[in-house]
Amino acid sequence: MKKFEEKTIKSEKIFNGKVINLQVDEVTLPNGKTSTRETIKHPGAVAVIPITKNNKIILVEQYRKPLEKSLIEIPAGKLEKNENPLAAAVRELEEETGYTTKDLSFVTSFYTSPGFADELMYIYISDQLVKMDHPPQGDDDEFVEVHELTLEEAKQYVIEERIHDAKTNYAILYLHALGRM
Amino acid sequence: MKKFEEKTIKSEKIFNGKVINLQVDEVTLPNGKTSTRETIKHPGAVAVIPITKNNKIILVEQYRKPLEKSLIEIPAGKLEKNENPLAAAVRELEEETGYTTKDLSFVTSFYTSPGFADELMYIYISDQLVKMDHPPQGDDDEFVEVHELTLEEAKQYVIEERIHDAKTNYAILYLHALGRM
Repeated sequence: MKKFEEKTIKSEKIFNGKVINLQVDEVTLPNGKTSTRETIKHPGAVAVIPITKNNKIILVEQYRKPLEKSLIEIPAGKLEKNENPLAAAVRELEEETGYTTKDLSFVTSFYTSPGFADELMYIYISDQLVKMDHPPQGDDDEFVEVHELTLEEAKQYVIEERIHDAKTNYAILYLHALGRM
Repeated sequence: MKKFEEKTIKSEKIFNGKVINLQVDEVTLPNGKTSTRETIKHPGAVAVIPITKNNKIILVEQYRKPLEKSLIEIPAGKLEKNENPLAAAVRELEEETGYTTKDLSFVTSFYTSPGFADELMYIYISDQLVKMDHPPQGDDDEFVEVHELTLEEAKQYVIEERIHDAKTNYAILYLHALGRM
């Protein structure tokens, strides 16, 4: 859909980083006036809702520098270049939790913050998890602690804001809606 | 929670924009090594799930430059400096839909993309809407079209990815979970 399209007059690349790029576009608005738009370019991301045989959800706690605190989230990570989202989801599940699976189902996808970023998040679910003897190592600058919670415990963490991000709040609501756990 | 805290050694401000700021921090990791973290600073945002007397959800379609397409979303917007989230939610509802309300309930809040941004999104709901004779004008660079949809229509739009962002997918799932519409 191109309703209210904003055509780019000029585009300036401000920053090329490890994770994100920033550009500022000068655009023509639908009324003919001009404005500027600030855009973060992101490779996209995947997340997995992992359910154990005991009906617990596996979550990972990690420090989030932008917030200067740690959050407890479903396992997730950035897409590598040209990486298939399903393959990326298995990779992140293995690296962050030490479990693998042969059965991941697609739940949904969404843009996390379409006003300023193009990050698209793919969410999968699996209740067919197998503990790995030798899980692969993740990035050497990532430190995570694994939590296994009942759905009721996870809901309490949402109230306490230890779970407090879009994909994980969505996941907990999804499990509640399905009456799965 | 400060688990796995990453202490800032050096912080460089890269960009100060209309909507977002970008900084790059050099940090000490829990293992003593160093790394860099790219952070988008954002003022925070609010969104409203507006339900009409006829049990329809009011959504707004707008062009999202980062995606180069339009999306259909719950009304939302950035917090102004020192603005109360509840006041901001009423303001955005009025500006974008032409409805107002005296009864907004808090639903949840979440960080939209905690890996690289500090944007915190507050979500409210109201089914006590009053059409305004003279709604306030929003920003002069914002163009929106209002849609009123049944929950079933909105779910179909999620499947078609015309609804495709975190806060709106959350809102549709929330209404489904509540069995409200």
